[in-house]
Amino acid sequence: MLVPALVDLYFSNPDWRVFAFSALFIGAFSLITAVATRGNPAVFSKRLGFLLVNMLWLTLSVAGAVPLYLSSLELTLADAFFESVSAVTTTGSTVISGLDSKPPGILIWRSLLRWIGGIGIVALGLLVLPYLRVGGFSFFKMESSNTAEKPFARFSIFVRAFFAIYIGLTVACALAYGAFGMNLFDAVNHSMTTISTGGFSTHDASFGAFDSLALLWTGSLFMAVGGMPFSVLILFLVRGRLDSVRDPQILTYLLIMLVISLVIALGLRLGSGESFAWALSHATFNVVSVVTTTGFASTDYMKWGPLAVMLFFVATFLGGCSGSTAGGLKTYRIIIMANTIRAGIRRLIYPNGIHTVRYGAVTVDAEMQRGVLLFFCAYMALWIFGALALAATGLDVLTAASGSITALANVGPGIGDIIGPAGNFTSVGDPAKLILALLMLLGRLEILVVLVLFTPLFWRD
Amino acid sequence: MLVPALVDLYFSNPDWRVFAFSALFIGAFSLITAVATRGNPAVFSKRLGFLLVNMLWLTLSVAGAVPLYLSSLELTLADAFFESVSAVTTTGSTVISGLDSKPPGILIWRSLLRWIGGIGIVALGLLVLPYLRVGGFSFFKMESSNTAEKPFARFSIFVRAFFAIYIGLTVACALAYGAFGMNLFDAVNHSMTTISTGGFSTHDASFGAFDSLALLWTGSLFMAVGGMPFSVLILFLVRGRLDSVRDPQILTYLLIMLVISLVIALGLRLGSGESFAWALSHATFNVVSVVTTTGFASTDYMKWGPLAVMLFFVATFLGGCSGSTAGGLKTYRIIIMANTIRAGIRRLIYPNGIHTVRYGAVTVDAEMQRGVLLFFCAYMALWIFGALALAATGLDVLTAASGSITALANVGPGIGDIIGPAGNFTSVGDPAKLILALLMLLGRLEILVVLVLFTPLFWRD
Repeated sequence: MLVPALVDLYFSNPDWRVFAFSALFIGAFSLITAVATRGNPAVFSKRLGFLLVNMLWLTLSVAGAVPLYLSSLELTLADAFFESVSAVTTTGSTVISGLDSKPPGILIWRSLLRWIGGIGIVALGLLVLPYLRVGGFSFFKMESSNTAEKPFARFSIFVRAFFAIYIGLTVACALAYGAFGMNLFDAVNHSMTTISTGGFSTHDASFGAFDSLALLWTGSLFMAVGGMPFSVLILFLVRGRLDSVRDPQILTYLLIMLVISLVIALGLRLGSGESFAWALSHATFNVVSVVTTTGFASTDYMKWGPLAVMLFFVATFLGGCSGSTAGGLKTYRIIIMANTIRAGIRRLIYPNGIHTVRYGAVTVDAEMQRGVLLFFCAYMALWIFGALALAATGLDVLTAASGSITALANVGPGIGDIIGPAGNFTSVGDPAKLILALLMLLGRLEILVVLVLFTPLFWRD
Repeated sequence: MLVPALVDLYFSNPDWRVFAFSALFIGAFSLITAVATRGNPAVFSKRLGFLLVNMLWLTLSVAGAVPLYLSSLELTLADAFFESVSAVTTTGSTVISGLDSKPPGILIWRSLLRWIGGIGIVALGLLVLPYLRVGGFSFFKMESSNTAEKPFARFSIFVRAFFAIYIGLTVACALAYGAFGMNLFDAVNHSMTTISTGGFSTHDASFGAFDSLALLWTGSLFMAVGGMPFSVLILFLVRGRLDSVRDPQILTYLLIMLVISLVIALGLRLGSGESFAWALSHATFNVVSVVTTTGFASTDYMKWGPLAVMLFFVATFLGGCSGSTAGGLKTYRIIIMANTIRAGIRRLIYPNGIHTVRYGAVTVDAEMQRGVLLFFCAYMALWIFGALALAATGLDVLTAASGSITALANVGPGIGDIIGPAGNFTSVGDPAKLILALLMLLGRLEILVVLVLFTPLFWRD
């Protein structure tokens, strides 16, 4: 909070007091809590792990909302909470319109929350979830079973390598944005929300405000990197090894984006007077934005015809790679599901044969198959319950159905006129905002981590 | 085909020649095929079983389309095939508008195809699919493992009991419809498409043409019976045993319909000037119609507000009980999925505990859990591919998304103005009609039975 305080102070914006006060208040509160609980170290258990992860994201969301609520934006409590949850979970939905004229401190705070959220997600996916046995798939586990030595013998090397890559990518992205025409402030803000696949912009028109194909391709590139497993980048940096690029999810993830982009670009070229370069640039940018669950938009793709709209709707479910900053179903689950269905059909023909499910060179055991299928069922069930709850607040079917999945997959924009790429979440009611915020948190914490807290078994001594 | 021929002859309609010719043509064709292949009995295997089931439904669909194509309706080939597939799979979507003035032979032929389709589905679900190990759940298997004796020692008793019940219910339904004001022709047609959960009407306005709450409740009752497992009714008739009513899917199936109907009725009462009796009657009728995958409509429920529309959309996925004439996901799968998710969450808290998944008193083993989850994934994947294909033909997102699932679940009407309860499938293009017909067949044959044919492994010697 001291960063936006300094930025606002530099630009002589009175909101610097809000940020300074919030920093003081939350800092003091945290200090008192730390002192009061000193000498009582928690006994670490899996249950505590679940509780901690949930509390961490909830605390970050509440803390992030404090300066937004107190600031000159005059947001309601629900608005401030929604905006903060959307940032911390790197979703990208916003309730603030007229971004172009908002104070710089607020804008940088939104981007910063998101950038920090991105760090949290990677750490969660690579370190915490495998320990809690959620997410079903640990890249480290796979790696260490493949090679004789553990890939990251020393934890601190991993942490240092990760920060180097995360900060390095952010700086590289900001420099590229600057080189292709963004001013310093825009470049810094957008690079932070690109690498974290967050998707907040400093303009209502998002990337449409810049009108530059070069910027679209730069954005596509860095979003695509943000949706890739960071472990691969880390392995390369620490060990100089590139063999983990063969992780099958990476190729599939890139292929999915390529195929959808090409289909939409072709349809766009045939159906409109635009050049193929324009069509491909905009199609790729928006598809990559949705698949990586970033949420930038370059234009209103609701006008690209029913097939394109349907593809964007379906793309909202997919998500990026595991171990990245992206949300959604995730590519490795899609691969395992497809292979499990194929094996199931083979089993119908030869019931007594052995039909293994593979993920690259690794055999996926029955337990893990069930884990992936289970996640998918829970994901779809939550999508449906979310859509019903949103419809109950009065939103139309398309807005409710796409709003539910765009929140659950941490994407950002939905389908339709209200919450589509040309709209925002200002006009949906407070109950709908709270439902969406809950869905964002559920999706961000891989659903089961949150649902665990709602079972009586969890709270039994 | 001789039945509609006689009906048209009685009403002096020239179409009787079409039906007589079709009967002769198909009869002769079948006879020649039978004579030509005499002496070469097929060696029965599982693969032949899959092929037979697919061929049976495809042949029925093509045969059913012949008189529709030749008749005075002047349908295109795609229209006739769509209408016939919709009938044979007991879906309920129609491309024929102006039903009220159509020749009686055509109308009775549509109803009859559906009634025969209903018989096929029950036979498929109770006898064929368990043998092919598709559908994942054999009621007979459960029954025989619970009791010392096999419930149907003699196959012929089963067949006779089934026909007695099916015909008995159809007659009872027709009498009830007649008692509450339908004429003989309407009563016979509607009873055939009620018990088979088919949903074709002889009026464009479907049940809206009668304006009678008593008829709505009669329809609801017999549709609900059509969506119940026939094995339960058979067991009761043959053995006088009622213990199989404890099959947990029955209670859940009734509860699902009750809860959705009540929510919609309350919303309707509060949001409109109608009486609660009117609201509850129409809500229940339309919800039962969708959940049992029948497809009748009593009024345009698209006008009941977003929550009701969303509930109808979600209800389209659900389906009735296994061993019934209903399609869709089916209640036993919903129960097993819910219990598997619950066990999965418990396993996160106590990874080393034993977390069994139960279906009533029966333990669902890992293989069966995977089968159910697998079906759900295949079901959702096909829904998405179907929706994309329909959107590619130019249909809007809502029509494409709801059209795909209403065909796959064999329900009938979709969501929106075009294919909703007040519309029909006349105006969707020929490519869309063929896609929808394929989805109906896929859904009717429990997806995997059709997909098996598309694997190279199936055709390998």
